[in-house]
Amino acid sequence: MRQQIEASPCLQPNHGLRSSPIAGVVLTGGDVDAIAGLLTLRERQAFTIYATARIQDVLDANPIFEVLARDVVQRRRVTIGTSFQLTFPDGKPSGLSLELIAVPGKVPLYLEQTAASPPIVESEDTVGAMVSDGQRRLFFIPGCAGMTGALAQRLQGADVVLFDGTLWTDDEMLRAGIGSKTGLRMGHMSISGANGTIAAFQRIDVRRKVLLHINNSNPILLDDSPERAAVEAAGWEVAYDGMEIRL
Amino acid sequence: MRQQIEASPCLQPNHGLRSSPIAGVVLTGGDVDAIAGLLTLRERQAFTIYATARIQDVLDANPIFEVLARDVVQRRRVTIGTSFQLTFPDGKPSGLSLELIAVPGKVPLYLEQTAASPPIVESEDTVGAMVSDGQRRLFFIPGCAGMTGALAQRLQGADVVLFDGTLWTDDEMLRAGIGSKTGLRMGHMSISGANGTIAAFQRIDVRRKVLLHINNSNPILLDDSPERAAVEAAGWEVAYDGMEIRL
Repeated sequence: MRQQIEASPCLQPNHGLRSSPIAGVVLTGGDVDAIAGLLTLRERQAFTIYATARIQDVLDANPIFEVLARDVVQRRRVTIGTSFQLTFPDGKPSGLSLELIAVPGKVPLYLEQTAASPPIVESEDTVGAMVSDGQRRLFFIPGCAGMTGALAQRLQGADVVLFDGTLWTDDEMLRAGIGSKTGLRMGHMSISGANGTIAAFQRIDVRRKVLLHINNSNPILLDDSPERAAVEAAGWEVAYDGMEIRL
Repeated sequence: MRQQIEASPCLQPNHGLRSSPIAGVVLTGGDVDAIAGLLTLRERQAFTIYATARIQDVLDANPIFEVLARDVVQRRRVTIGTSFQLTFPDGKPSGLSLELIAVPGKVPLYLEQTAASPPIVESEDTVGAMVSDGQRRLFFIPGCAGMTGALAQRLQGADVVLFDGTLWTDDEMLRAGIGSKTGLRMGHMSISGANGTIAAFQRIDVRRKVLLHINNSNPILLDDSPERAAVEAAGWEVAYDGMEIRL
């Protein structure tokens, strides 16, 4: 699951029977890999779901998410570009602020109306998230169809950027015979190439850069591949299950 | 996930790139633990979803399941009490027949309209499934709110029964302070007691009996508990992850 999850030492797993350290879930899109994990957080554990109005509408339109009872789980509509303080379910401040940021992307797969490529636009369907404690800034951007000037400017000087690492090359799934879509068709820029992620970030100063949301066709998943060596040489880390990041 | 999944040696995992041995999924209810697993079977792998009209309506009412593209994944409406041959996606016969059978149950949690207890009825919301090769019969009944005379008669002489093992006693979640509902409120009969599963099956001749859908409050999950000893003494097995059953 690709949600960004905020935990707090105030809410340890052993804080009461069946408690959870998850105080909030920030959704950056409506695709299955971004929202299906909500169904494993049931039932009757208080937390807040933060998402754009568009993605909250997607949840509202799927009755299965009512398993997250509305008298326990808050659904909060967040405006892109507006920073606000994250709070615990009991209203206490977390000390962290959140801002959803515009990135190029597309609608969720299951909402595509035709087989034709959906437009790649900045909209409420796919966003990035910035979390800050007032000093440091972490960006979570698991889906991004291209680097814009505005996005590069926002990322400048960030402490951590977790970024879309879906594909190494745009056509790798077609060439492997395991899919009919390019990366761009799926709303993802690729890591390599002149318009790729490595090239784009060479002009952006970021302290720690991590690739995540990596497709199983992507050779950077292999420890000993030349592509893994290339991303590491360019200053990137490759995310792994259980990875912890301390700012 | 609690689906019953049929596999065939004709469709091995290594039968082509990204193939799947899953030719069909039989749904016996609409709760999250019965249907959310469908979201991990995407995308563009041919199989058939068998369920009552009522549960197919539930899937239809949740756009997220459109990720199972309708030009690839068939959704078949099954009438309770009618046996038919299961086929592979290419139309070839599987040699197995399926019949959905009536069991006492309730609507899915997320479709309950009030906090009051929903009625326990035999309906299309919760069913059992019988699979047969013409010689032997396997029953899959992960949710059952009580043993009826008709159900006992159907189970008589079965080769395998996989049965609702949610709770040991009806009030165990209340007593442990981890929930506000009884087993019956959740649509489950309990294993112990005069009206429990062990007692009910003492009057039904079944070759192999397996408890599954076991809640984490149920002491039969502990290898060395007296409750585990009691179910085993009564001729029951306790299901475990990765269990395989050969008829």
